[in-house]
Amino acid sequence: MDPHRALKYARAGQKKFVSELKEFLRFPSVSSQPEHADDLKKCARWLAQHLQHIGLDRVRIIPTRGNPIVYASWLRAPGRPTLIIYGHYDVLPGEPLREWRTPPFTPTLKNDDLHARGAADDKGQLFSHVKALESYLKTERALPVNVKCIFEGEEEIGSPHLTAFIERNQGALRADAAVISDTRMLAPDRPAISYAQRGGLRAELVVKGPPHELHSGNFGGAVHNPLQALCEMIAGLHDAQGRVTIPGFYDDVRRWGEKERAFMARTGPTDEQILQDGKVERGWGESGFSLYERTTIRPALTLNGMAGGHYGRGAKSIIPARAIAKLSFRLVPDQDPEKIAQLFRDQIERITPPAVRSSVRTFSPIEPALVDRHHPAVRAAAFAYKKGFGASPVFIRSGGSIPVVNTFQKVLGIPAVLMGFGLPDDHIHGPNEKFHLPNFYSAIATSICYLALAARLRRPQPTQAQTEWQRS
Amino acid sequence: MDPHRALKYARAGQKKFVSELKEFLRFPSVSSQPEHADDLKKCARWLAQHLQHIGLDRVRIIPTRGNPIVYASWLRAPGRPTLIIYGHYDVLPGEPLREWRTPPFTPTLKNDDLHARGAADDKGQLFSHVKALESYLKTERALPVNVKCIFEGEEEIGSPHLTAFIERNQGALRADAAVISDTRMLAPDRPAISYAQRGGLRAELVVKGPPHELHSGNFGGAVHNPLQALCEMIAGLHDAQGRVTIPGFYDDVRRWGEKERAFMARTGPTDEQILQDGKVERGWGESGFSLYERTTIRPALTLNGMAGGHYGRGAKSIIPARAIAKLSFRLVPDQDPEKIAQLFRDQIERITPPAVRSSVRTFSPIEPALVDRHHPAVRAAAFAYKKGFGASPVFIRSGGSIPVVNTFQKVLGIPAVLMGFGLPDDHIHGPNEKFHLPNFYSAIATSICYLALAARLRRPQPTQAQTEWQRS
Repeated sequence: MDPHRALKYARAGQKKFVSELKEFLRFPSVSSQPEHADDLKKCARWLAQHLQHIGLDRVRIIPTRGNPIVYASWLRAPGRPTLIIYGHYDVLPGEPLREWRTPPFTPTLKNDDLHARGAADDKGQLFSHVKALESYLKTERALPVNVKCIFEGEEEIGSPHLTAFIERNQGALRADAAVISDTRMLAPDRPAISYAQRGGLRAELVVKGPPHELHSGNFGGAVHNPLQALCEMIAGLHDAQGRVTIPGFYDDVRRWGEKERAFMARTGPTDEQILQDGKVERGWGESGFSLYERTTIRPALTLNGMAGGHYGRGAKSIIPARAIAKLSFRLVPDQDPEKIAQLFRDQIERITPPAVRSSVRTFSPIEPALVDRHHPAVRAAAFAYKKGFGASPVFIRSGGSIPVVNTFQKVLGIPAVLMGFGLPDDHIHGPNEKFHLPNFYSAIATSICYLALAARLRRPQPTQAQTEWQRS
Repeated sequence: MDPHRALKYARAGQKKFVSELKEFLRFPSVSSQPEHADDLKKCARWLAQHLQHIGLDRVRIIPTRGNPIVYASWLRAPGRPTLIIYGHYDVLPGEPLREWRTPPFTPTLKNDDLHARGAADDKGQLFSHVKALESYLKTERALPVNVKCIFEGEEEIGSPHLTAFIERNQGALRADAAVISDTRMLAPDRPAISYAQRGGLRAELVVKGPPHELHSGNFGGAVHNPLQALCEMIAGLHDAQGRVTIPGFYDDVRRWGEKERAFMARTGPTDEQILQDGKVERGWGESGFSLYERTTIRPALTLNGMAGGHYGRGAKSIIPARAIAKLSFRLVPDQDPEKIAQLFRDQIERITPPAVRSSVRTFSPIEPALVDRHHPAVRAAAFAYKKGFGASPVFIRSGGSIPVVNTFQKVLGIPAVLMGFGLPDDHIHGPNEKFHLPNFYSAIATSICYLALAARLRRPQPTQAQTEWQRS
């Protein structure tokens, strides 16, 4: 199928697409805050109606024990390959609100950037594929390949129900490759395909001291302070060189050979680029590795937040009663999140000072993932980028974690093609998140070309459908 | 003047006194939160009206650059000694509100305890003296001694305007002794007179990293985390033995001889008692000193609160952009708060990791204070306790800081008689603060007896009045 007419439709429809994306961005579909459960349902409903509207078949809102999965398919190309298109419609919280220049759920256009929480991660990227599908369906009344869309609402909380859903519906979800756009390019003219993801694990550490706050005059110097103890424990988790001190933490970290490291040095961002992306002056962390290596082939432990005692306005002369820290691990092959959770618990038990008590909760384990960058479905993506962006993509490793990559590979036995459309300065997860509209338009064109190229992939599998989904 | 009729009046008036104290406690006179400035004014007005009502002369609300000072005097006993009665009508914030069993500014009677923020610190203790004055004025139409009441509204923020006020009005404030009830007894049957106070200094430490939050997947392991850096810095301020590591911090700490330490061991609370008061299982801090010594003759550095990144519900995979810590020092003779502030600044500069930036703000310096426990005005207080509580007081050191103690001693040259009426489990500065009503009644009786005994003090000074107060 020639993508010519679809590309033309997409070029003509840009204004309409932006206006629809704005609608999509207005839902505060924050998966980590229970009070937004209803917003997630509404957002799922809007997305399902939209998929129906553009002409996909079998649109379903599939309930899970958490937020629903929006599924849609178009399977009228017998004998042709089948692609899964994955994305997530949930987003992170908008907080801290005072640091946003425009409200996070009031999408606002500034020059060529659309500002809103989820603009790049992942509503905008997900929507690029939806608009590519629409461009074919509205011009050709058909797609070049069979398509199964899986849009979930729990990626930002570690996709707790998605793996079970995919495992229970392996037959119905059979496909040749999965396309995921939830990563980033190196620059507007430097597209990128990710071939590696770090895994992850989250932890909450609570330290308790006296049953209630104590007067720091009467007790200061004689009673240990759980907040200070937490600082000591956190400080003790890294050595002066930025290495994690948990015994055994590095035991299973794969050592990559010189060939792979040389490839990374050629293709990946330089230290200078990474510092510039983060707007920081100097790097930090394990010596002997570039900043790119530190964020991809080396694991990390990050303190995401912490609070205890009185930190608001005014002063309170107290010894706090408790303190909490939220941490996250980024893990690499061949680390096992469950094993790391156990090592962490053991270490916390060892380093808790005797005068306080600590408790640990770990959750959202995600295994690290690697994608074969020579797989035909991945190479097709490289060609598509060249057409959509006018530049060949580089193959890079990503420091983040998309839980489903592993599931697609392990459960369905198909590669995850990680076509990133975000930019390093899109501020994903932070205040003032944005999506660069020229990237949105090029992403749609890239997806249109990819669908055409995917039609030529070998090893087509017979398409299957199943009308009733197992609740995950 | 025989205290008999005043004591009888006080016994008969208990119910009325409690009801008036409840009115006083209803004002959320929180000096550390600017939004309560008006509540402080209203509380001052109520107190002034009350002092007028019980029969004091020259009641004035004296404006300062901060919260007003309520002044009242009765100087119709020429040739007799003059007592200053000091107290403070400001309180700490009620937060954390969820930990209160009754709202902090809705005074609630439970058995023999009156629960409210400020019940013991210091409205209840201050009011004990007011009711003692009323008991004389309503029965004898006179007081045994001349009295000058100074009730300020800024004690909990370090009395920033009181010293200047006292310095500018030295003549008008001339007196023989100052009575302050803002400390505690050891137990309901073990009254106590404080003869030492620790000094203090507050500090705020801010650490900044990237200009905004960064995605911890993309940057974790390569960019230093200001919150983690703050933990490292805080952890480094104490050694493993609980000693403060700031170079020079202990240089000026006075070493007390065996005689004083033996006196302290005899009179002060035991380690067990202090642990029981704080409801903690084990002590912490400098070895070689009892817990009582650690909280009185040894200085302390306490982390009062800290926050950074995402610590609310849900998870956010970020490297925070900034973090803040609030700390307070408790200082002992002969440490100088200004010198300690400089040592702290220097040390923070030294230990700030190169990949982040830090800034320090210090405020509320308070010098440590000692009172001669053999001074006649102090010994008279001991007799008064025996009459009011049926038990001789012990002489103890206090770990807290009342800024005015030093000012009275240095500027007016008079001793501060620290008659405590609070109990160790009154939860001052914490949730569920209370005042034990039997202590309130005994405190009034003690004050009545003290006023009678003070009439016999030697070295009476000519009383002076000044109608116009200098704005401090």
